[in-house]
Amino acid sequence: MRDTTKEMLAFVREMDKMKGILRANMMLDGSRHEDDAQHSWHASIIAMLLADEAGPDVDIDRAIKMLLVHDIVEVDAGDTYAYDEKGYEDKEEREQRAADRLFPMAGRVGAMMRELWEEFEACQTPTAQYAAAIDRLQPLWGNFWVDGKVWKENNITLAKVQKRNEVTVKALPQIWRETEEMLDEALEKGYLL
Amino acid sequence: MRDTTKEMLAFVREMDKMKGILRANMMLDGSRHEDDAQHSWHASIIAMLLADEAGPDVDIDRAIKMLLVHDIVEVDAGDTYAYDEKGYEDKEEREQRAADRLFPMAGRVGAMMRELWEEFEACQTPTAQYAAAIDRLQPLWGNFWVDGKVWKENNITLAKVQKRNEVTVKALPQIWRETEEMLDEALEKGYLL
Repeated sequence: MRDTTKEMLAFVREMDKMKGILRANMMLDGSRHEDDAQHSWHASIIAMLLADEAGPDVDIDRAIKMLLVHDIVEVDAGDTYAYDEKGYEDKEEREQRAADRLFPMAGRVGAMMRELWEEFEACQTPTAQYAAAIDRLQPLWGNFWVDGKVWKENNITLAKVQKRNEVTVKALPQIWRETEEMLDEALEKGYLL
Repeated sequence: MRDTTKEMLAFVREMDKMKGILRANMMLDGSRHEDDAQHSWHASIIAMLLADEAGPDVDIDRAIKMLLVHDIVEVDAGDTYAYDEKGYEDKEEREQRAADRLFPMAGRVGAMMRELWEEFEACQTPTAQYAAAIDRLQPLWGNFWVDGKVWKENNITLAKVQKRNEVTVKALPQIWRETEEMLDEALEKGYLL
């Protein structure tokens, strides 16, 4: 077996851990928290679904790959809940350390994955902003559909959700306006403060 | 909210069920069976990793999208274990019925997803064969790494695994030769009959 194949297999095996990194969000049937592999898949599907809403400079295929790899660093760094201010203090440091260990395991493709992740994190290109908007919408919608469970448990305010979705306003303006209709209802029903 | 957005959201919500469709394969830590969302994500990552091994006519971005949608019909049709001969008798009929209900929910993109799924199922194009090979390798490797658990429970023979991987021989010849080294070891250790 070639060394490159051994490396590739070691990385495939390492990636299985994504199935065990639990996020704050619930599966919609309420049976368990969703994990990073499920979230990444669901977000990638949404990237396909919203293609017609994307601006002209968005590369949908690249956005999909970005969403597939955007949480890989959490294999080492763990998931940081979007509204966990304390967790965000050292998130970047933890994730950079994780990136330094994980991506080099995958050779040339790993370097390409790291580029995708860094573009996603920098959130400057239209493609990264589209991917980031979807990364925020997937749990927002999910949380609305489980009657705001995670928002209520964490006393999340509408203002915080709006702040987190500044990129959504930019990348998917019409979808954001429509999502605001859900947020109005969330406020009314006490899902959000 | 536009009707197209309502439809899109209904489809996003429906897709959450993929996280509850359990497969025969286990997570590598042995804690639970993996589900269709996790499998589809893992397979998509492998499609990125093996890009350099793909033949010249393989469109990697299209293969990734194929792998993202290839199991969507299982939301209605359920997972059919690769070596379940009885289950395979009506698999196509169950899955066509599921496709008729699910893909139209997602409008224009749903029609594109259905094309991807049909190309994958027909397994004639180099891109579909590449995706199909990865769909077979992901659980094969996973099963090897949990000491052949699912093979042993189902008395699976080496010949069956080889038969199921005829497309792998074609699409990823060198990776298949290297995988055969794992299968030799699996046979020796009694993971496979």
